Amino acid sequence: MQTSLVLTIILSLLLGAFAQKPHHCKSPPYLQGKLAVDFPEGKTMVYEQFSYDALEQRIRVVAAGKEGEHDVFMDRLLLFREKVYYDIIYHNKTCVKNYLDAAFVPIAIPSDAKHRAQVVLGSLSAPAEGLLVNNWVGSDAEIKANYSLTFTEFGCIPVVTVYHIDGMGHFLSSFFDMVVGIDDPAVFIPPAFCFSKNLVESKGGKATNHFTALL
Amino acid sequence: MQTSLVLTIILSLLLGAFAQKPHHCKSPPYLQGKLAVDFPEGKTMVYEQFSYDALEQRIRVVAAGKEGEHDVFMDRLLLFREKVYYDIIYHNKTCVKNYLDAAFVPIAIPSDAKHRAQVVLGSLSAPAEGLLVNNWVGSDAEIKANYSLTFTEFGCIPVVTVYHIDGMGHFLSSFFDMVVGIDDPAVFIPPAFCFSKNLVESKGGKATNHFTALL
Repeated sequence: MQTSLVLTIILSLLLGAFAQKPHHCKSPPYLQGKLAVDFPEGKTMVYEQFSYDALEQRIRVVAAGKEGEHDVFMDRLLLFREKVYYDIIYHNKTCVKNYLDAAFVPIAIPSDAKHRAQVVLGSLSAPAEGLLVNNWVGSDAEIKANYSLTFTEFGCIPVVTVYHIDGMGHFLSSFFDMVVGIDDPAVFIPPAFCFSKNLVESKGGKATNHFTALL
Repeated sequence: MQTSLVLTIILSLLLGAFAQKPHHCKSPPYLQGKLAVDFPEGKTMVYEQFSYDALEQRIRVVAAGKEGEHDVFMDRLLLFREKVYYDIIYHNKTCVKNYLDAAFVPIAIPSDAKHRAQVVLGSLSAPAEGLLVNNWVGSDAEIKANYSLTFTEFGCIPVVTVYHIDGMGHFLSSFFDMVVGIDDPAVFIPPAFCFSKNLVESKGGKATNHFTALL
């Protein structure tokens, strides 16, 4: 009787300790949402709407914004397994197919990131008034960047990411209106005109990696 | 019978419409929390801990940060009704009393601010994973600033404020760990040494307004 009591207490303490420590989490495999990206020196601001499928390694991103005085627009479908991405232009039904030179990196806190702080956005004084988030920092040797990632404690949903890239500056991404799931799976299928004679295969195109895809 | 049904429907539609539209809200009268203030061009970053009492018009703010290479520290008690503020230095028990030339402005969305967007930080796909917030924009003629204010939909708790002041740049304040209430009401009472011989009355001191107090 006493042994089982002691065991129960030890077990609950252990479980409590594990539960308390924020863990390096991975976002749900299906996500859709929006993000506002603030490019270095505030010269460019881009709004993106994206759909993300970590199981089949596909991302669709539609971006609109301003680069100085110019309007920029992009509708891109990245198929990491097939190592291609399509730039889709609906108004004249053309499609540019490019080689995708990148491994799929799921939306997650990297295993070598350091936990910096757990904070509440808003307040936990009443229901629906606050959001518990974790901030993680680290560096990515491949893209030569230091990063700060803020994800929700529950659900591992990205809220704010900041990448400071050597010689380029800060890229601040604010995520919002995130939904777990995909409301239209067709977003991951290239439109019919991507397989017709209008397809332009770009051979000299810039290789895109996962990082620049969502930036 | 029919008339009352029609009236009920009209009334519920009207109430629904009123409930849907985000309103210019005012924060709770007692608040405490933290904020990170990013000053123009990222040269200065200050962390503040503040207690706010809108009923008796008192604010206590403790700020620590870096201005270029210098460490900055400030412990200030603002008593708007008495039109004074104290700069409190505990380590040598001195206190500088200054004239406070500002009306108390409660933490609120100004009545002439325009509603820009309602968004979810994180996700509403599961409980505790998201936070519904409203973004308001406007301009303040007195301090010659355009502002963007993001407050929670429920509770009217500040989350992020950005002030763009002519000729100065962006002041970005991120609020976190907000609590409705005051855990120690003594923070609003000047320490005893503020009434002793160590008190320095500053007559030529800069006038502080509400805006610069929390920035």
